Amino acid sequence: MGAFRLVELERVVDALEDGFRHAAGLAALEPLAPITIERRDVGPHDVRIDIKYAGICHSDIHTVRGEWGPANYPVVPGHEIAGVVAEVGSAVTRFAVGDRVGVGCLVDSCGECDSCLRGEEQHCRKGSVLTDNGIGRDGQPTQGGYAESIVVTERFVCRIPDGLALDVAAPLLCAGITTYAPLRRWGAGPGKRVAVVGLGGLGHLAEYHATTDPATFAVLARSFDLIVNTVSAAIDLDAYLSLLDVDGVLVTVGVPAEPMSVHAASVALQRRTLAGSLIGGLPQTQEMLDFCAEHGIGAEIEKINRQQINQAYERVLAADVRYRFVIDMTAG
Amino acid sequence: MGAFRLVELERVVDALEDGFRHAAGLAALEPLAPITIERRDVGPHDVRIDIKYAGICHSDIHTVRGEWGPANYPVVPGHEIAGVVAEVGSAVTRFAVGDRVGVGCLVDSCGECDSCLRGEEQHCRKGSVLTDNGIGRDGQPTQGGYAESIVVTERFVCRIPDGLALDVAAPLLCAGITTYAPLRRWGAGPGKRVAVVGLGGLGHLAEYHATTDPATFAVLARSFDLIVNTVSAAIDLDAYLSLLDVDGVLVTVGVPAEPMSVHAASVALQRRTLAGSLIGGLPQTQEMLDFCAEHGIGAEIEKINRQQINQAYERVLAADVRYRFVIDMTAG
Repeated sequence: MGAFRLVELERVVDALEDGFRHAAGLAALEPLAPITIERRDVGPHDVRIDIKYAGICHSDIHTVRGEWGPANYPVVPGHEIAGVVAEVGSAVTRFAVGDRVGVGCLVDSCGECDSCLRGEEQHCRKGSVLTDNGIGRDGQPTQGGYAESIVVTERFVCRIPDGLALDVAAPLLCAGITTYAPLRRWGAGPGKRVAVVGLGGLGHLAEYHATTDPATFAVLARSFDLIVNTVSAAIDLDAYLSLLDVDGVLVTVGVPAEPMSVHAASVALQRRTLAGSLIGGLPQTQEMLDFCAEHGIGAEIEKINRQQINQAYERVLAADVRYRFVIDMTAG
Repeated sequence: MGAFRLVELERVVDALEDGFRHAAGLAALEPLAPITIERRDVGPHDVRIDIKYAGICHSDIHTVRGEWGPANYPVVPGHEIAGVVAEVGSAVTRFAVGDRVGVGCLVDSCGECDSCLRGEEQHCRKGSVLTDNGIGRDGQPTQGGYAESIVVTERFVCRIPDGLALDVAAPLLCAGITTYAPLRRWGAGPGKRVAVVGLGGLGHLAEYHATTDPATFAVLARSFDLIVNTVSAAIDLDAYLSLLDVDGVLVTVGVPAEPMSVHAASVALQRRTLAGSLIGGLPQTQEMLDFCAEHGIGAEIEKINRQQINQAYERVLAADVRYRFVIDMTAG
């Protein structure tokens, strides 16, 4: 995966406003506004985290605007959380006050099903608990990371290695693992010909190809073993599949609302595969963070303060961000 | 794959009328009629086969009717060929006169590219040569198996084991390998939960489910690891994908003309895969024949004579066949 830089690890799902304690959407079509929320007391297995940075994911916008179904207003979005441990429960073994930690899309799961036991909590048979706009196992709505602190059960907290700055680590917790997981599952590594579709950051790579030019598809026909599609709008799947060699795999991590169209011949004739992927489990998220620290990979970010969130949302919708906004909770 | 019977190994691509030496389509929309064709002389690496049985594949009908592009009329269809070696070239090492042999969809390939060297001649970089309605490496049209004999280079001839009758072996050369290949590639075996969509023969299995009943999809939700879709018409892919468990794979071997529709969420959320597959290479075709002989698997067939081909075509189109017509070239 040597050719992969931070830039790939972000804009995966792509990426509200005035300041406060927590930035919350109060109703769909309203800008975010500050509110005060209560976090639960720290239980025996809990970790309380002082949030330093929170990434802005495009799905945050869907959530606060009720585009992915009704939100539990007021809703505090945010699931790309980096911070420092402020308090640990009596039974916590893996973390101590002062540790640098991260929290991604999930804050709980049953912990007992085959998926959880394999460390694939995102596929929990009983349904995993989303960090924001979810329903906790206690029946209470969950509130996300655009906040000063959060309380999370130890099992859903990752360690951010020393070599990785907290601000550039934050987007890795959702966007990063979303891209890392399919690269791992489908064997990206030495000798593999890998392409990423839909990165604003693709221009940073040596092998940039403009897919707006139809000739690109002729030039690159059957050139890749693995393509990760990060575009959350409909793309011409048959055209992208034609870029795969025999046995090639196109993994889509974007989830457009409208159905995709694909000809059976596009997969059958060259034995190609169209696959999907969804974030990753906690062990793999930790592995990804360790990988990024070891290879000096972090998200390329634009830091904003709490007052700039709504403006940042507009810029995300206009694709005017290189490549991820991160809210600095310690500023402003 | 213990649960798989012959019945699955047939109706994969799903499956013409008067007698003669070779049954040929003379023009699109015309019934087949007898003609006389010349086979090439037996070269050093060639085997001449007396054809005993030829399976009728649905694609034969597409071919003779010009539905898959213009045919080289007169065209002799047929690529499920079982017979006996009648003559061998001077350099042939693997076959002798009297050997029981089969020929499938391919009769030649470059033999030098990476695909050919891996024994995956169906993915030959220079294009493999189809048994019927193809263009040989000598530039001449190929003529298929509805014939009394055929001359094929040794490398594209399979041995039919003694335990396997020639008539029930014939359909294995296309329909059989088409189903066998995805089962092998995607790890069908002990513990795997496998379903086959679109078999008339599914009714022969213990676990028959009527997909015309919407409740079936609720009952079987997330029940399978592997689904092989043999239907060559459009199916509701999202519905069938919902029957797959986490990491499940749906392989389509049918190639409907119209594009398929699939929601990204159907693959992304449970990390499912939509794959395609196309026949198999020669080594795997031989493996499949050996497997079938060892396990007593052969196609369930209805034998017809040369005079009944056109009638059989009409019955294939009406799905009135259990499960494969085989032309007995020794009769009538």
